[in-house]
Amino acid sequence: MKFSAYDRILFTGDSVTDAGRARPVGEGLHTGVGSGYVRVVESLLAAFYPELYLRVSNTGTSGNTSRDLAARWQTDVLDLKPDWLYVCIGVNDVWRQFDSPAITSSHVSLEEYEANLRTMLTSAKAATKGVTLMTPYYMEPLTADPMRARMDEYGAVCRRLAAELDLPLIDTQALFDAYFAHRHSSFVAWDRVHPNQTGCTLLARAILDEAGFDWAHRA
Amino acid sequence: MKFSAYDRILFTGDSVTDAGRARPVGEGLHTGVGSGYVRVVESLLAAFYPELYLRVSNTGTSGNTSRDLAARWQTDVLDLKPDWLYVCIGVNDVWRQFDSPAITSSHVSLEEYEANLRTMLTSAKAATKGVTLMTPYYMEPLTADPMRARMDEYGAVCRRLAAELDLPLIDTQALFDAYFAHRHSSFVAWDRVHPNQTGCTLLARAILDEAGFDWAHRA
Amino acid sequence: MKFSAYDRILFTGDSVTDAGRARPVGEGLHTGVGSGYVRVVESLLAAFYPELYLRVSNTGTSGNTSRDLAARWQTDVLDLKPDWLYVCIGVNDVWRQFDSPAITSSHVSLEEYEANLRTMLTSAKAATKGVTLMTPYYMEPLTADPMRARMDEYGAVCRRLAAELDLPLIDTQALFDAYFAHRHSSFVAWDRVHPNQTGCTLLARAILDEAGFDWAHRA
Amino acid sequence: MKFSAYDRILFTGDSVTDAGRARPVGEGLHTGVGSGYVRVVESLLAAFYPELYLRVSNTGTSGNTSRDLAARWQTDVLDLKPDWLYVCIGVNDVWRQFDSPAITSSHVSLEEYEANLRTMLTSAKAATKGVTLMTPYYMEPLTADPMRARMDEYGAVCRRLAAELDLPLIDTQALFDAYFAHRHSSFVAWDRVHPNQTGCTLLARAILDEAGFDWAHRA
Amino acid sequence: MKFSAYDRILFTGDSVTDAGRARPVGEGLHTGVGSGYVRVVESLLAAFYPELYLRVSNTGTSGNTSRDLAARWQTDVLDLKPDWLYVCIGVNDVWRQFDSPAITSSHVSLEEYEANLRTMLTSAKAATKGVTLMTPYYMEPLTADPMRARMDEYGAVCRRLAAELDLPLIDTQALFDAYFAHRHSSFVAWDRVHPNQTGCTLLARAILDEAGFDWAHRA
Amino acid sequence: MKFSAYDRILFTGDSVTDAGRARPVGEGLHTGVGSGYVRVVESLLAAFYPELYLRVSNTGTSGNTSRDLAARWQTDVLDLKPDWLYVCIGVNDVWRQFDSPAITSSHVSLEEYEANLRTMLTSAKAATKGVTLMTPYYMEPLTADPMRARMDEYGAVCRRLAAELDLPLIDTQALFDAYFAHRHSSFVAWDRVHPNQTGCTLLARAILDEAGFDWAHRA
Amino acid sequence: MKFSAYDRILFTGDSVTDAGRARPVGEGLHTGVGSGYVRVVESLLAAFYPELYLRVSNTGTSGNTSRDLAARWQTDVLDLKPDWLYVCIGVNDVWRQFDSPAITSSHVSLEEYEANLRTMLTSAKAATKGVTLMTPYYMEPLTADPMRARMDEYGAVCRRLAAELDLPLIDTQALFDAYFAHRHSSFVAWDRVHPNQTGCTLLARAILDEAGFDWAHRA
Amino acid sequence: MKFSAYDRILFTGDSVTDAGRARPVGEGLHTGVGSGYVRVVESLLAAFYPELYLRVSNTGTSGNTSRDLAARWQTDVLDLKPDWLYVCIGVNDVWRQFDSPAITSSHVSLEEYEANLRTMLTSAKAATKGVTLMTPYYMEPLTADPMRARMDEYGAVCRRLAAELDLPLIDTQALFDAYFAHRHSSFVAWDRVHPNQTGCTLLARAILDEAGFDWAHRA
Repeated sequence: MKFSAYDRILFTGDSVTDAGRARPVGEGLHTGVGSGYVRVVESLLAAFYPELYLRVSNTGTSGNTSRDLAARWQTDVLDLKPDWLYVCIGVNDVWRQFDSPAITSSHVSLEEYEANLRTMLTSAKAATKGVTLMTPYYMEPLTADPMRARMDEYGAVCRRLAAELDLPLIDTQALFDAYFAHRHSSFVAWDRVHPNQTGCTLLARAILDEAGFDWAHRA
Repeated sequence: MKFSAYDRILFTGDSVTDAGRARPVGEGLHTGVGSGYVRVVESLLAAFYPELYLRVSNTGTSGNTSRDLAARWQTDVLDLKPDWLYVCIGVNDVWRQFDSPAITSSHVSLEEYEANLRTMLTSAKAATKGVTLMTPYYMEPLTADPMRARMDEYGAVCRRLAAELDLPLIDTQALFDAYFAHRHSSFVAWDRVHPNQTGCTLLARAILDEAGFDWAHRA
Repeated sequence: MKFSAYDRILFTGDSVTDAGRARPVGEGLHTGVGSGYVRVVESLLAAFYPELYLRVSNTGTSGNTSRDLAARWQTDVLDLKPDWLYVCIGVNDVWRQFDSPAITSSHVSLEEYEANLRTMLTSAKAATKGVTLMTPYYMEPLTADPMRARMDEYGAVCRRLAAELDLPLIDTQALFDAYFAHRHSSFVAWDRVHPNQTGCTLLARAILDEAGFDWAHRA
Repeated sequence: MKFSAYDRILFTGDSVTDAGRARPVGEGLHTGVGSGYVRVVESLLAAFYPELYLRVSNTGTSGNTSRDLAARWQTDVLDLKPDWLYVCIGVNDVWRQFDSPAITSSHVSLEEYEANLRTMLTSAKAATKGVTLMTPYYMEPLTADPMRARMDEYGAVCRRLAAELDLPLIDTQALFDAYFAHRHSSFVAWDRVHPNQTGCTLLARAILDEAGFDWAHRA
Repeated sequence: MKFSAYDRILFTGDSVTDAGRARPVGEGLHTGVGSGYVRVVESLLAAFYPELYLRVSNTGTSGNTSRDLAARWQTDVLDLKPDWLYVCIGVNDVWRQFDSPAITSSHVSLEEYEANLRTMLTSAKAATKGVTLMTPYYMEPLTADPMRARMDEYGAVCRRLAAELDLPLIDTQALFDAYFAHRHSSFVAWDRVHPNQTGCTLLARAILDEAGFDWAHRA
Repeated sequence: MKFSAYDRILFTGDSVTDAGRARPVGEGLHTGVGSGYVRVVESLLAAFYPELYLRVSNTGTSGNTSRDLAARWQTDVLDLKPDWLYVCIGVNDVWRQFDSPAITSSHVSLEEYEANLRTMLTSAKAATKGVTLMTPYYMEPLTADPMRARMDEYGAVCRRLAAELDLPLIDTQALFDAYFAHRHSSFVAWDRVHPNQTGCTLLARAILDEAGFDWAHRA
Repeated sequence: MKFSAYDRILFTGDSVTDAGRARPVGEGLHTGVGSGYVRVVESLLAAFYPELYLRVSNTGTSGNTSRDLAARWQTDVLDLKPDWLYVCIGVNDVWRQFDSPAITSSHVSLEEYEANLRTMLTSAKAATKGVTLMTPYYMEPLTADPMRARMDEYGAVCRRLAAELDLPLIDTQALFDAYFAHRHSSFVAWDRVHPNQTGCTLLARAILDEAGFDWAHRA
Repeated sequence: MKFSAYDRILFTGDSVTDAGRARPVGEGLHTGVGSGYVRVVESLLAAFYPELYLRVSNTGTSGNTSRDLAARWQTDVLDLKPDWLYVCIGVNDVWRQFDSPAITSSHVSLEEYEANLRTMLTSAKAATKGVTLMTPYYMEPLTADPMRARMDEYGAVCRRLAAELDLPLIDTQALFDAYFAHRHSSFVAWDRVHPNQTGCTLLARAILDEAGFDWAHRA
C-alpha cells in the first residue's frame, strides 16, 4: 500500500466528502471525519492496518463548486500539509445547471472547471507525495440523461488533466455504472448524488484499491 | 367545470398525496390538506371559483402501497362519502422492488396491484359522482430505466382499468414526460418521486384541466 | 408575456413578500423564495413556461415600512440588477398607526410614504426593464373601517405615483374587495394582512395577468 | 361582591377561555388557569380581596362549539360542583361558517345553538349559586360585516335566554364596541377573536363589575 | 391621572422589571414589555384609558444591581427620553450578600447603593416630567429575617433620597407587608423576590394609585 | 454503621426525595437515584464503604402528600422489600395550605397526616430491619412564620409517632435551624423547600450520622 | 460464501447489536439496521455482492442480558424465520456484576447464562440454515482485569456450547485481543464495550470471514 | 483546616475539573462550579464550615492539555488572584497518544509537560497562599496497561515537581488504585477518566483531607 506510517491523508470536495465533518478540520474523535465515504476509508485503514498510524482528514464543504474550492485552497488544503490528497469536485458545477437553470451565475462552465482544477492540482502536486483525482459522477447509468451527459464532459476533463499532470485517477462514474448493472441507483442514493452507506463503501473500496490496500492483510 | 357547489372532493394515495395532511382527515384550516398538490388544487379552486363552496379532503398516507390503501378503503374513502374521488397509488408498489430488492414481502406484484385497484375503484364508482384514476409515475423520461419501465407496466394497468370501468384517467407519467422536454427531472424533484411546488402545480393543472376548470374564469 | 428567457424578476416589500425567504437573497432550491405569493408566481411561471428560464428573487423583509425599505434599496434592489421589479410596501406604514398608536416614531406619514416611494421607484425605473407597483391593502371590504380608510389614502399615493412615473400598477385592494363579494376575509387571512395559500394565489394571478401570462399556454 | 369565602368560580367555553389552561382542570399553581382573561380575573380577585379565598377554575377548550361543550358538560362543569359558573361559547359556532364555508358539518345553526345553551344553562342554574352568560363576540365594530351580523344573532339568543332563565348577562360585544370608539380592533386582537392582555383586562373588568367587585377596596 | 396623551413611561431595574422584555427596548407588540408587572400596568392603562395613548417601555435587565444599572443609564434611560421614569433597583445589591456571601465583589454596599441611586436619579429628574422611585423589597414580613432587615436599610436609603430629591416613592415593602396580613408570601412568589401574576397586580396597582389612576373611570 | 453488606436502603417521600429519579424504581446507573440528597448519601456510602455493597433505591414522587404516598405504599415501598426505609413526607401537606389556600381539597389536615403516617410506618416497621422517620421542614428559622409554625405541628406528629413506634427520627427542621445560625436560607434553597447541593449534603450528613457512619473510615 | 440470494440474515443481542435500529424490526431504508456493526456487514455485502439480494435484519435491544433475550426469543427471532442467525449476548450479564454490584437481581450467573443460551440456540438451530454464536467480550487485553476474567468464563460457555451444538463460533474476544497488540482499547471504544466505526469494522470483518466472504470479489 | 474566611479557592484543569462550569469563571449560583468534584468540595465546605465564607471557583476547560492550560494561565488563573490553587492537568497529554495516535501534533511529550507545569506552578506559587498539585490518573489498576504506564510517567513528573517546588501533592492515581481493591473501575467511570458522583466524592475527600478538613466538625 502506498501509505506510510503517520502519513496524513486529506480528502476535500463538496457535500459528498463533507458529510457532517468537524470544523475547522474534520479529523479525530467522535466522527470528526463526518459520516460519509471518508469515514469508511478511515475505519477500513484503521481496522486492517493498525500497525500504521494514518491520519485521515477531511475539508469537504457542502455545496461547493470547483470555484468555491479554489477560493479556499490555500487554507483548507495547502496549509494542512497533507502527504496524500484526494479531490472530488464538480458535481455542483453541473447540478446547478439542471436544478437552477435560470441562476446562471451559479453555474461553472467546463472551461472554468478545467482552469480551477488545473490550478489546484498543480499546486498540490508539488507539495504532496501524491494527489488522486476523483471524477465527479451522476448515479445514472443511462448516458442519454442530459445531466449524466454533461457530467461526463466534466469527467473527461478530469481524465485529461490526470493524464496531463500524471496523477492517479478514480473513475467514480465507471464505478457506479458497473454497480448499476446489478442494482438500481435508488438502492444507493435517492437523489443520484449523495451515497448511502453502501455507496460510500463502493467509493472507499475504489480509493483503497487504487492505493494498493491488501484486503487479505490481517495484522 | 364538473364540480357543483358544496361538493366534497377527496384525494387519496401515498406520500405524494399526503404531504403532511392533518389527521384523521386532511381538510380545513391551517394547511389541513397538506402542502402538496392537493393544496394547489384547493387554492386554485378557491381563488378562481369562490362562488362555489368546494370541500377538498385528503386521506393520502405516506409509504402506502395499493395493498395498504385497500386495507383502509372503507374508513378512509367510502365512509367519508365523497362526491368526487381521486386515487393516485402504485409508486411504492414499484419503488420497494428497486430500493429494497431483498425485502420481497414489501413488493406488490402487477397482478395484486390490478386486483387491489379493481376492488377499490369498483366500490368507489358506485358510491360517488365520479372517480378519477391518476397513474403512478417515475419522473424519469428515459424508458430504458428499469424502474421507469416497471412503472409503465403499472401505469398500463391503470389505463386498462380506467377503460374497463369507464373512469377518467390522468396520465401523470405523460404529463411529466412532456415537461422533461424542457427541464431536467431534478428541477421538479430530487428523488424523481416527490414533486416540489412546481411539480405539484403541474399535477394540479392536469387535475383541473380534466375537470373542466376554466382558467379564464374571474369571479 | 412580457418576460424573456433568463430575465431576473425581483419582488421586494414586507412580511407579505418575505414569507420566510432565504437570506441574503431569496431564490434557488428549497423554498428559497419563501412560502408566500412569490412562490406561487414562481411555480406557475415554471410550470406553464418551462421553455423560458425565469429567475425569481425575493428581498421582502418582515416588519418593513417604506422607510426601512428605502434604507436598504441600494443593496437589496439596485445591486441585484433585476430585469423586472415588483414593489409591495406600505401595510406597516399604516398598521403601526393602529396597533401601536402611542409609538408614533414607528408610524410613516402619507407624505413620507410618497417621498420614499418616489425616490425608490425613480431609481429603479431607470435601471430595469420595468417596475410594477403593488398597492398596500387591508383585507377589509368595509371602507368605514378606519385602517381600511387610511390604507386607501396610501393606495391613492400609489395610483398617483404610478401615473406620474408611468408604471404599471396592481390594485391589490380592488382585487381583494372583489373577492370579498364571495367570501369573508377570514377565509383568506386571519389578521386581514397575511394571505394564506388561497390569498397568495389571488395575488399571483393578478401579477401574472398584468404580465400577459397566457393561462392556456401548454409547453 | 357576590362571591363568598372559599367559593369555587368556574369558567368554561372555547379557546378564549382555555388560553393554555392545565388539564384536566385548569387551576392551582403555575398558571393553571391559563394566560387569558381567567388569569386576569384570578389575579385581581387575589390582589384586591386576599381576605377571601376564592377558587378559580377553568375548563375552556380550544376550538369548541356549543355542540362540543354540551357533550362534555357533565364532566367538565356539573361534576366540578362550582358555586359560580361563567359560560362564554358560540364564537366557533359562527366562525366556521365563514372560514370553512364548505365544511358545513362544522357549522352550528342558530337553532342548535339555542338548544345547546338552554340545556346547559338550565342544568347549571339548578346546581349553582349563579350562572353568568357571556355573549359571543366578534371584535368588529361595523355591523355590516357579515360575520359580525351573524354573531349578533347568536348574541341575541344569549340575551333572550338570559332573560328567560333570569341569568345575569355580560354583553361582551357591547363592551368591545365601546372600546373601539377609541382604538382599532387590531390593538386588542389581530384576528378579531383572541384578545391580548389588554383585551383580557377588558373582559375581566366587565366580569368583576357585574359581580360587584369594589375597585376601591384595599384589604 | 398624571399621565398625558402620548407620554412615554419607562420602567427600569432588574429581573422583576425585565420579565422577558424585548431587546434592545421592551415595548410594542407581542409582549414587548415582558410578562411582569410592567405588562399589568400597560394593560390596565390601555383598558381604562383608551382615550390616552401612553407608550410604556421597559429596560429592566435580569441580575442587575444598582452598579450595573448605573453603567447603562445613559443608553437605557436618558437616551430614550422618557416623560416618566420608574426605577426599581437594589434587590440584587442585597441578595448576593446572602446567597453568595463569599463572592464579596458581587455585593453592593449601602454607601455605593446610595451613591449610584443619587447619580442616576439626579440626572433623570432633570430630564423628565417625573421620576418615581420604587423601593427594593423582600417578600418576607418578619423583620427579624436578616435579608429583610438588610433590605430595609436599602429601602430607607430610597426613602431618604426620595425626600432629598423630592421624588414620589412607592414603598413596595410596605405594600407586600400589608398583603401578608392575609396571605403567606409563598402565595405570591416562591423565592420571595419574583412576583407571580397576583404579585405583579399588587405592584401595578400601587404604581397606578400613586399616579392618580381612577379605577372608576370607564372610557 | 448499621448497614450490612448487600442491604437495600429505600428512600421515599416527595419532590425533595424524588429529584429526578428513574422510573419505576430509582436506582442503578446514570443517576438512577436522582440528583438530590439520596445521591449524596449513595455516593458517600460508596466512597467510604466500598467493602460493603449497599443498594440505594428511591421512590420519592414530586408533589406527593402523605395521602398520595399512602395510596402507593404497597407497590412503592413494601413490595420492594427494603432492609432499611427512610420516609420524608409532609411538606406538601402543609405547603398547599399556604400557596393554594382556596383549594382546600389539596390540604391534608394534621389528623389525616398522623393517621396516614401511623398506617405506613406500622406496616413498614414489621417488614424491615429499620424505619427512619425524617420530619418535614420549612427552611425558615423564624418560628413566627405561619407556614413554619404549621410545619412544626406536623414535625411534632413525627416526633410523637417516632416515640410511640420506637423509630429513629431525623429532625431535619432542627438541622436546618442550626445551619441558619450561620447562613441565610437563600443560600441553601431559593424556595425554602428544595435544597441545593449544599442543602442535600446537610441532609445526607444527618442521615449518615444517625446510621453510625464513620467519617474517619478509609477503606 | 455461505449466503444465497434472498437469504434473510438476522442479528440479535444487546446494545452492541442494536445501535439505534428501527422498531419493531431493524431493516430497510434509512439506517433501519442501526449504525453499528450490522450496518457495516450490510453495506459490505451489498457493495461486494450486488448480484445477491441478501436481507439483513436486526433485533438487538440495548441493555439486554441473556435472560431478557430469552424472554423475547419467539417474537424477535423465531417468528421472523431467518435463514441465518447471529447471536451476540452476555456482555450485560457480566457488566452489571461490576458496575452495579449491589443490585444482584440484575446479574445473570454463569449457570443461567448457559441455560439461556442452550435453550435459545437449540430452538434456532432447528429452524434456520445456520446459527453463528458470537462470544461476549470486554475490550481489555489484560486478563488480570476481573471483568475480563469473568467475561472469559462466559466466553468459554459459548465455546463449549458451540462445540456441543456444532455451531460456528466467532471469538470476538480473541479478535479484539489481537487488535490490541497494535492499538490501545481507547482507540476503538471509550467504555471497552461499545465499538466505534473501526471496532464495528473489525466485528464485521470477522463475521464475513467466517461466512466465506471473498474480499477479492468484484461484481 | 488551612482555609481562612473569605479565601478564594480556585480549581483548574481539563474536563474532569470543568464538568459544565459557568463561563467565563465557574462560581456562584446554579451549579456555577459545574457538576463534578469541585461541586462536591464546595458543598462539603459549605455544609461543614458555614462559619467560614469560602469562595470556590473553577476554570477547568474540557479537552485541555498542559499546553492549552499554559496558554490561558494568566487570564484564567493569575488574574483571578486566588488564595489557594488546585491544578489537575495531564490526562489529555497522555490520552491523545492512545486514542489519536496518528495526530501527533495533539500529543504533549513528557518533557513539554514538565516544562509547562514548572512554568505554571512557579508563577502561581509566588502569587498564592498555596498551590496543590493533583496528579493526572487513569482509572486502571493494572500497571501493565500502556496508557496507565504512560500516565504513571506523567504522575512521576508531578511528584518530582511537587518535591522540587515544595508543593503539596494529591496522588489521585494512588487514591483510585486503593479504591479498585474493592470495586471495578466501571463502577466509578465508564471511560476510566470522567468520574461519576462517587468518583468525584473520592477526589473531593482527598482534597479536603490534605487541607486539614475536620469531618467531625459540626458548626
